Amino acid sequence: MTSLQQVNPRVLAIRESTGLQTLAAHITQQITQGGKRPFQKVTDVSSHDPQEAGMAPISFVRQVLAMCQYPELLKDEHFPLDARQRAQKLLGWCSGGSVGSYTPTSNGTPQILETIADFITRRDGGVRSHPENIIFSTGSQKIFQLLLHLMSCGSGGSQTGMLIPTPCPHTLLSLMDESEVKTVPYQLMEERGWAVDLDKLHQALKAARGHCEPRAIYICNPGNPTGHVQDRETIEQVIRFAATEGLVLLAHEVHQDSVYGQDKQFVSYKKVLFEMEKKYSEAVELISIHSISTACAGECGLRGAYMEVVNVDPPIMTYVKRLQITTCPPVLSHFAMHLMVNPPTPGDLSYGKYAQEILQRQKTLSQNARRACDFLNALPGMSCQPAMGGVFLYPRLQLSSHMIEEAKTSGVEADVFYCQRFLEEEGVCLGPGCENGHDDQNYHVRLCVLVPPVSLDQVLARLRSFHLRLLEGSH
Amino acid sequence: MTSLQQVNPRVLAIRESTGLQTLAAHITQQITQGGKRPFQKVTDVSSHDPQEAGMAPISFVRQVLAMCQYPELLKDEHFPLDARQRAQKLLGWCSGGSVGSYTPTSNGTPQILETIADFITRRDGGVRSHPENIIFSTGSQKIFQLLLHLMSCGSGGSQTGMLIPTPCPHTLLSLMDESEVKTVPYQLMEERGWAVDLDKLHQALKAARGHCEPRAIYICNPGNPTGHVQDRETIEQVIRFAATEGLVLLAHEVHQDSVYGQDKQFVSYKKVLFEMEKKYSEAVELISIHSISTACAGECGLRGAYMEVVNVDPPIMTYVKRLQITTCPPVLSHFAMHLMVNPPTPGDLSYGKYAQEILQRQKTLSQNARRACDFLNALPGMSCQPAMGGVFLYPRLQLSSHMIEEAKTSGVEADVFYCQRFLEEEGVCLGPGCENGHDDQNYHVRLCVLVPPVSLDQVLARLRSFHLRLLEGSH
Repeated sequence: MTSLQQVNPRVLAIRESTGLQTLAAHITQQITQGGKRPFQKVTDVSSHDPQEAGMAPISFVRQVLAMCQYPELLKDEHFPLDARQRAQKLLGWCSGGSVGSYTPTSNGTPQILETIADFITRRDGGVRSHPENIIFSTGSQKIFQLLLHLMSCGSGGSQTGMLIPTPCPHTLLSLMDESEVKTVPYQLMEERGWAVDLDKLHQALKAARGHCEPRAIYICNPGNPTGHVQDRETIEQVIRFAATEGLVLLAHEVHQDSVYGQDKQFVSYKKVLFEMEKKYSEAVELISIHSISTACAGECGLRGAYMEVVNVDPPIMTYVKRLQITTCPPVLSHFAMHLMVNPPTPGDLSYGKYAQEILQRQKTLSQNARRACDFLNALPGMSCQPAMGGVFLYPRLQLSSHMIEEAKTSGVEADVFYCQRFLEEEGVCLGPGCENGHDDQNYHVRLCVLVPPVSLDQVLARLRSFHLRLLEGSH
Repeated sequence: MTSLQQVNPRVLAIRESTGLQTLAAHITQQITQGGKRPFQKVTDVSSHDPQEAGMAPISFVRQVLAMCQYPELLKDEHFPLDARQRAQKLLGWCSGGSVGSYTPTSNGTPQILETIADFITRRDGGVRSHPENIIFSTGSQKIFQLLLHLMSCGSGGSQTGMLIPTPCPHTLLSLMDESEVKTVPYQLMEERGWAVDLDKLHQALKAARGHCEPRAIYICNPGNPTGHVQDRETIEQVIRFAATEGLVLLAHEVHQDSVYGQDKQFVSYKKVLFEMEKKYSEAVELISIHSISTACAGECGLRGAYMEVVNVDPPIMTYVKRLQITTCPPVLSHFAMHLMVNPPTPGDLSYGKYAQEILQRQKTLSQNARRACDFLNALPGMSCQPAMGGVFLYPRLQLSSHMIEEAKTSGVEADVFYCQRFLEEEGVCLGPGCENGHDDQNYHVRLCVLVPPVSLDQVLARLRSFHLRLLEGSH
């Protein structure tokens, strides 16, 4: 690798980050070394990381995992009996009774795949899920990498393409850069609360023809960063579209536990698909992704996700599984997933505390989302669609032409420029919309609202102060 | 993905497993369901999984990880004070003080990368290691995947090729299949204890010309599955070869903690390189891989590995780091690595117990390796090079032409056939040499000897019984 010519062109294609995280780290270091700033620490609300923000983990999950790590603790009667029993059960599923051994298959522990399938079946009101359709890996981005790798083939006009929403999760675009799959963007409808629009899907498909062969559509529900929650009718429309156009449907449903919009509820693509006519339910290839980095479990640092794969031909499934060639997933990530989808139930000793912890989190999230949306909409030059689920708000910024010019001079996007200045002046890191794939003149920023209410208050107060100062300056 | 034509050809190229693991699982299930077999359970010695085999984990590592999982335990005075202090320190390195948040960078926690670099510096007697050269991931196979992806470019005669030993670790070949990097095999010298031979490297390179462009050489030291430990002179030769031929040197040094051959010791490629003349020490691109799945730590299920990258140009390093696009590694895997490379030291409360646990493991391993080698060499039709390090023995089988014919009729390799029959008849799973890349008429099997001595006794007794029965049958 004496020169960049000897590096994989796909690796060279991975976009540079906007540098906001590096700036945040730099400022934090300055403060640590005694540098003076008008704030005492940097608050990062650009991504979903509830435990960084100070939200506590679910006690039951951590108790069981600690006992699995150090089985001596099984004798410790400070732990609730049901937690001890659960840890004992999980250790019984380990080869040699230890989390230090490889899982029995490269896809994990058969009993855990069964409990995931049972969870999906319960969630979907009885629509059956089968453990042999569950693939586990170290986080939803790893799952997504695996899928992109699986589906990439052809070149030129026959190269695999994938429909991707604008805006999309900010973690998605680097994965697309690195893959051999072409991005086919479709615009979500901001004025309709970021709904999916069928016409936009058809437009995207038409524009892609000749450049690539679209073979899949990616959907994020609840929407990241939009907070939109799809209704059954939309889901049916998307399924019919995928069926007609022969597209694999990738449903990213990580925030299924956090829907709080009035009269809204999460309905999975799987459930809707299996309640449609056979020509859909037996034909559409659907892959649904779920993770332990949800709003409620919020175990981002433990890294675990699964996908359920349906209607994919058995010979292809053989290869999906063969792609799991790196011996096994981290056992504790795998266990954390089991605990998330099989929490204590009424009657269990740990249930009361568990239910209270979850409720507290859901309440914080929904109240924060409403409060922050009202607050942002009251600011001049800012407008925000109310979120119905997920953990982000995604307000639109009306930036002055003066500021857009200034950004251009600095060589960055105007939304990045806005975020940089906010970070420098007030110590809060927002996510610029360009990271979510926005590249037109409608600037947006991304703001995670799953943080303790007192942190949110501070973030919003600082944002108002900065934003008004900016508006004044531009007159 | 309605047909296999829509699946990535690289994925379709991943070889089918030999099916021995599936057979082992099948037999285990039969026994569980009351099926009669002349053994009570299956013993799998085909791979390195000490905790599956019944070896206990290192207490200090598990104590600290348990407290990190559930910080309430920090108050528990049953834990040694130094373990509690270590857990407190690690939690202080987490954003928000919790293992449930993402690490500060996508490559992990800066302080942990520093402690890894310090470990390497100590190990190499002062040759400096720098934290910015350390990349962490979920196991050495993931690291290897990342490297293959990084280096794959070109097509036809200019496609990247990599020199790989025969035999090589059995986990390597599927990774090569899936990558765009061509395998260029070089033969190790069985009669010289599986040493690397320079002539064989040149031969391999010559044979590859025209088919691909060799850009890297992979070396495994201590050898998996060979048990060979390279001396300084060989390492210097390999470094000169890599320098002359412009090859990146990938040193897989996972079993550096388990060298037990008389007068043998582990010397790292890094140390040797940096003690050579500048035209080597400042030029040869060296990547060294280490993992928590070693003989002593043996935390296979926790999944953690790092690579140290030296002499790679800064612009290329930028892309190596940009490849870490999946937010962060599992925090507990990362912590386990920190604990392995920074164990208790003399004077620490936990040191006595730690040192005793490590010593016990090393003693078991070296005694087992010697005993098993003598045992195998005493069997007719079997010969085994003594291992000097690592966790495997790799004996050669002289199979009768009758048996080779029989295998051919069954449609499998003769070594696979041998392993299948042994598994069926005696309940022990060995690894067939074809999984290690052997495809000539010199049949071999792979046998992990890092198991409790009593298990090894049983395995060897069953192997003798089966092997002699087989020899009798073939007369």
